[in-house]
Amino acid sequence: MRKGSVYYFENAPRVRSYSSCVGKKEGEGPLGDCFDIVGEDDRFGEETWEKAESAMVMTSVHGAVSKAGLEMGDIGCLLGGDLLNQCVSTSYAVREMGVRFLGLYGACSTMAESLILGASLINGGLESKVICTASSHFCSAERQYRYPLEYGGQRTPTAQWTATASGSVLLSEKGGKAAVTRAMAGRIYDPGVTDSANMGAAMALAAYETISGYFMDTGEKPRDYDLIVTGDLAQVGRDIVLSMAGEQGLELSGVYEDCGIMLYDRDRQDVHAGGSGCGCSAAVLCGHILPGLEKGLYKRVLFCGTGALLSPVITSQGESIPGICHLVCLEAL
Amino acid sequence: MRKGSVYYFENAPRVRSYSSCVGKKEGEGPLGDCFDIVGEDDRFGEETWEKAESAMVMTSVHGAVSKAGLEMGDIGCLLGGDLLNQCVSTSYAVREMGVRFLGLYGACSTMAESLILGASLINGGLESKVICTASSHFCSAERQYRYPLEYGGQRTPTAQWTATASGSVLLSEKGGKAAVTRAMAGRIYDPGVTDSANMGAAMALAAYETISGYFMDTGEKPRDYDLIVTGDLAQVGRDIVLSMAGEQGLELSGVYEDCGIMLYDRDRQDVHAGGSGCGCSAAVLCGHILPGLEKGLYKRVLFCGTGALLSPVITSQGESIPGICHLVCLEAL
Repeated sequence: MRKGSVYYFENAPRVRSYSSCVGKKEGEGPLGDCFDIVGEDDRFGEETWEKAESAMVMTSVHGAVSKAGLEMGDIGCLLGGDLLNQCVSTSYAVREMGVRFLGLYGACSTMAESLILGASLINGGLESKVICTASSHFCSAERQYRYPLEYGGQRTPTAQWTATASGSVLLSEKGGKAAVTRAMAGRIYDPGVTDSANMGAAMALAAYETISGYFMDTGEKPRDYDLIVTGDLAQVGRDIVLSMAGEQGLELSGVYEDCGIMLYDRDRQDVHAGGSGCGCSAAVLCGHILPGLEKGLYKRVLFCGTGALLSPVITSQGESIPGICHLVCLEAL
Repeated sequence: MRKGSVYYFENAPRVRSYSSCVGKKEGEGPLGDCFDIVGEDDRFGEETWEKAESAMVMTSVHGAVSKAGLEMGDIGCLLGGDLLNQCVSTSYAVREMGVRFLGLYGACSTMAESLILGASLINGGLESKVICTASSHFCSAERQYRYPLEYGGQRTPTAQWTATASGSVLLSEKGGKAAVTRAMAGRIYDPGVTDSANMGAAMALAAYETISGYFMDTGEKPRDYDLIVTGDLAQVGRDIVLSMAGEQGLELSGVYEDCGIMLYDRDRQDVHAGGSGCGCSAAVLCGHILPGLEKGLYKRVLFCGTGALLSPVITSQGESIPGICHLVCLEAL
């Protein structure tokens, strides 16, 4: 059922299991103990960064499936993607799995997008079990979007650190202690930012519009939630969202966090504004938020995936960076 | 409802309207008269090929919306993508539309993938009107995947010509003379082809597996359909599918076509094995297949989108090319 622009899942798909796999730096951050697998050298036994990212995807997908006591053959389809050109880290991982695959591209909003579409398939009775996944890798993404790693370019204060991380969620008709109860797909907003080292500012407007639109459509308030979390605006984008919300009388402070800030210790880990990358919100979801729903730390969470839909080609043509934000409501059962 | 791996849409989403926009060469092909808009110079008034592709997306989306007598504000969300890095031709087109957006990546299978997911949202009561779209542009894709256009590299006989084309379908709960009645998402198959100028061979196995799997799950036969069409295997891939089907006793000849062969005159237009690109199957769908369903030329069609999930980075690392094929069943009402 849809009211306004919000999908209401009457047969709310359950979060049956989930798993995360992160790199060394992410394992040294404040949430380091939360993740299932922390790599020793970010290579995950592979010879290239792209294949290392694929290995992380395989690890988190198989982790989620095995935690549920299932096998890959039990999964109806996998929905997901990553930041790489042609989403190769996901598709090469899926190649080894024999599972049906619907590839997505939402930049850093991909985890939320996969939950929306995966939940829609289950809610509509078309699937009984799906995997939703997203990943990113610092070394594969940075050289693709910005500079060769060896170049060692200086990073600006607004820059975000692409997380080496993967998270996978197994949604199911039954089982589990949390559910996807509602969702809202986002519109693209472009405030005119042309600096690809300032993605937080480019995505903040989309985040604000989706979050405020959700409260307008549902008639609820931020205080009806234990956590409203964006992924990943980092410090710059989060400050803009709080400022816009304050101006419009939307009381977010106290309940609003950002995965890009949660993943790293900014004082100690030299990540500048904070984390980014599809894998950042995916891993924080699977390492911290979903366990928090299971353990009673949270009852209701709004998980808001934010994506900067740029490419190096189009920004070099002088275009500004469009942002998008997809929202998913997660509730403890 | 799902039986085997086939989605059955009980509230079969209707094809309310559709529109296509193609380049000069495509306009000179056998289907040239079928398309709504044929460009004069493949630039569509823009200064870069990427922006030209975006302009084509806008043209076909607005075409579909206006043919239905609707406005963009009536559309719940748009699902689609393209071949470009970070799917920029679609996202920059959507930026101008103010519509909710779920970005997809399925390489040349994207049109079928968008129909599967768009139909799933409508069938489940989450949307009443969605746009499904896909596009490609010879000039933006070739320089990204293969060589700079100015280089003028010689093309091998197995090479396919990336279509300059865009197609958009407006699915709706009501109206229209055709419906999406069933669908099946595909698995990835990789027969080990490492030559990015031989994508037909890389995708043929996936196409065969999806088509034969569909007939196994439904208990139907190819003769139950007026047209089974892949998009886009071109001559090399189509021959492989026919050969595999023949060996397994699946009688495809007479009913099986390929969008990459239909779009061009191979004797006259120097496209080698035939067409490819997300836009090829999207435009053939919107220019020829859907009108054929409306006019009674076809009663039942299987539209099978085939994608080669490669990237230049991963093939340069020695990886072979994974193929996927998503199937959609379209029926005249």
